Amino acid sequence: MNLNTTSLEFLFHPRSVALAGVTVTNPEHWTRTFFESLVEFGCTPLYPVNPKGGEIDGYKIFLSLKDIPGNIDYVISTVPARVAPSLVQEGFEKGVKAIHFCTSGFAETGEEEGIRLEAELKEAGRRTGIRLIGPNCMGIYCPTARLSFQAAFPKESGPVSFISQSGGNATGLVSQAMLRGVRFSKVISYGNACDLNESDYLEYLTDEPETSIICLYVEGIRDGNRFSQALQRAAGKPEVLLIQGGVTEGGARATAGHTGSLAGSEATWDALCRQLGVIRVHSMDEMTDILVTLLFLRLEKGRRAGLIGFGGGASVLITDKFEKTGLKVPLLPQKLRDQIRAYTHIAGNILRNPIDYSQTVDDVAKLSTTASIVSQWDGIDFVVGFLTPERASPGTKRLLFNIIDGISQGSRAGSKPMGLVVEPSLRPEEASYIFPLIQRGVASGLPVYFSFDGVASAINTVLNYYENRRSRSET
Amino acid sequence: MNLNTTSLEFLFHPRSVALAGVTVTNPEHWTRTFFESLVEFGCTPLYPVNPKGGEIDGYKIFLSLKDIPGNIDYVISTVPARVAPSLVQEGFEKGVKAIHFCTSGFAETGEEEGIRLEAELKEAGRRTGIRLIGPNCMGIYCPTARLSFQAAFPKESGPVSFISQSGGNATGLVSQAMLRGVRFSKVISYGNACDLNESDYLEYLTDEPETSIICLYVEGIRDGNRFSQALQRAAGKPEVLLIQGGVTEGGARATAGHTGSLAGSEATWDALCRQLGVIRVHSMDEMTDILVTLLFLRLEKGRRAGLIGFGGGASVLITDKFEKTGLKVPLLPQKLRDQIRAYTHIAGNILRNPIDYSQTVDDVAKLSTTASIVSQWDGIDFVVGFLTPERASPGTKRLLFNIIDGISQGSRAGSKPMGLVVEPSLRPEEASYIFPLIQRGVASGLPVYFSFDGVASAINTVLNYYENRRSRSET
Repeated sequence: MNLNTTSLEFLFHPRSVALAGVTVTNPEHWTRTFFESLVEFGCTPLYPVNPKGGEIDGYKIFLSLKDIPGNIDYVISTVPARVAPSLVQEGFEKGVKAIHFCTSGFAETGEEEGIRLEAELKEAGRRTGIRLIGPNCMGIYCPTARLSFQAAFPKESGPVSFISQSGGNATGLVSQAMLRGVRFSKVISYGNACDLNESDYLEYLTDEPETSIICLYVEGIRDGNRFSQALQRAAGKPEVLLIQGGVTEGGARATAGHTGSLAGSEATWDALCRQLGVIRVHSMDEMTDILVTLLFLRLEKGRRAGLIGFGGGASVLITDKFEKTGLKVPLLPQKLRDQIRAYTHIAGNILRNPIDYSQTVDDVAKLSTTASIVSQWDGIDFVVGFLTPERASPGTKRLLFNIIDGISQGSRAGSKPMGLVVEPSLRPEEASYIFPLIQRGVASGLPVYFSFDGVASAINTVLNYYENRRSRSET
Repeated sequence: MNLNTTSLEFLFHPRSVALAGVTVTNPEHWTRTFFESLVEFGCTPLYPVNPKGGEIDGYKIFLSLKDIPGNIDYVISTVPARVAPSLVQEGFEKGVKAIHFCTSGFAETGEEEGIRLEAELKEAGRRTGIRLIGPNCMGIYCPTARLSFQAAFPKESGPVSFISQSGGNATGLVSQAMLRGVRFSKVISYGNACDLNESDYLEYLTDEPETSIICLYVEGIRDGNRFSQALQRAAGKPEVLLIQGGVTEGGARATAGHTGSLAGSEATWDALCRQLGVIRVHSMDEMTDILVTLLFLRLEKGRRAGLIGFGGGASVLITDKFEKTGLKVPLLPQKLRDQIRAYTHIAGNILRNPIDYSQTVDDVAKLSTTASIVSQWDGIDFVVGFLTPERASPGTKRLLFNIIDGISQGSRAGSKPMGLVVEPSLRPEEASYIFPLIQRGVASGLPVYFSFDGVASAINTVLNYYENRRSRSET
């Protein structure tokens, strides 16, 4: 099985979709998110199916697959586990090519009945030739195919694909990353992988021309050799980012209960990633930080940062964080310091790199000139701006958009890569003006980060990755 | 100098306060935050001073200190650096005991004039006997004394004090920590420390009965031996948390520009903290996480966690994070698993520890019973609940308060320490229902964290600290 993975293309271009097991009576049931998402994305033709019949939002509910008038390419199923195998048979009779089983209650339960049902499901797939996604997963998000499992996901496509054993982590990454300008080509939440597995998806996406970065969240590997080969073939063509879940004893217990898989050890994964040129990642937040760095910071080489922002204590802490992480914050030459000092008063500012412009915050023209001087200095390789808007005075708060524009326009003079750190707030009233600032940074094409740790660690990881890639290509 | 530090008590009980250099014409100027904060805190009598005269919000502006009718104990000054030394002389003539100079433009500029002015200021303090806070800092927040430099700080007092060389970091910690239930006795932003320095404040707070935790953000030490001795005497009486800023080459350059200090090396600080029993901290977020752990988690010993929350992928990642950090997530015994399984369906849940209750989220009674069973199990030492509210369905969102109550009430059965992780959101519309959830957790007396990294790292740090303290007290 799984030999013909290039044929996975058909998963991402179904001509018609049925939604088997859609909840008719309770519009708040979570299974309704599939229906709502597909409608929102304009997926058509779309056929909801439930033996109870009825209607949702003007859509007729078909009693079974065979009652549907046209052909069905793709079925999204939330039917109970016990009837899942018979749905495959029904799909076979209707000429269905693939079924995504969102349904859980299979081998991941560790219970006899679930294990038996998953074996039956797998056998039904093999017998009929219908390819199965899942069970126990959220399936496919592919904006060009108008497939989505969340109505709020972006409708535009982008260069990132994500293969995630967990549906929650798939939703989590897209939700986080979309706010920071990341768009996706194909996201596959694949769960228990009773038929199609991580290697199938990885092999397919390696050659998929719309994907230039593949993110992986994998809890367990069905065939270690095949997966290593797939990683090796993929790595560096698209960039590959890998989170391996369940690497600890307790974590492995969670993965066994989550998707019924067995995970490898921490050391195994570290060694494998280094060897293959895969970026190893440890949390969803880190994955997002690395994605925006790869996509929007456009680093080449060089670890020397120019830092421009607000707050003396903040300046010290971000600089310490950069240097502890292995980046450099070199001293601005006296000549450039004098140049800035000529029009900038010194009290309450720092003009050495880091630049703390706290006391000249209301003069955006000067800020922009200073950013321009710093960015044109050949002693640095990239610029990072940092803002703590929650602490700004009311007068400064009104200038925050201009400040972001001032730093980023000024920095453009040096044609250096530029990133921006904006400290978010928990408080709704603060979030209401900080979120638009983040959006402004994102709309300007900047990678936006939320913490000093996050920006320093992501830049360092990406630079290490590029260095590793260069040294591998030289040998 | 600085011999009589017990006398610092007078700083925190001024009978009258003058505000020298208050901005009269521009109500949005940042110096107005002092006036607004003191009025908001009911600081009285309060005398604004500016040679221009006039009135603000019904307060008469006095032309100079000597024009003020009564005695003045304490002056908060935002006058320009060049007139700072003469203000000390004026204060002397008026019988002032202490002056806080917010004003910057002194030695931290690295420029000749600033260095000269700071020397003059220091000499004026020495000559007159007036104790000086600063210059280049935000001064004192002490709710019982009705002193504050931010109007929005809490008016209730609490067990934490903070000695911070940086005003921004002082504001940052109070602002973050107040949302998580932390209240402060005394916060001192002390800047360039031309007179009173970190050791003076530390020595005073060590014996101050309202303070049981001292946080320190220090960029440079005036007298290393005295500071080590002060740390040694303090450590463990109150708990001491220390962030050392400027430990890298670039960071040291920033501290030189920020508060004109010289910092020690990373290794020096690590060794010193281990030896003295001080908790070394590396960011403001980490400091807040450790504070809520010390204050509200009430750990004793033992690294074994019971984890209860929502999301399979989240369960795997939090468990991995705990175990990688050095905590344990032991397997729930079969007997207890059977007990929970008897009333909990298995599909989509994990019942092994971690407990993923995703599919029974709408039955709060069951959730509470399960939390109660887990918390009473003698195989764990503490319980952590975790929620990703942004990803919840609309039906679940309405239940989130009940879910927090269910987990925390259930967990009370086992009398185990309990913490809660709530993933925040950037989006104002999400923050508007997530922030009240955080407040609910805080109001229930729970330590609330915002990331898996944050909770695991803080618990591990506090357990290491307790172990270190026990082993030190045994030898």
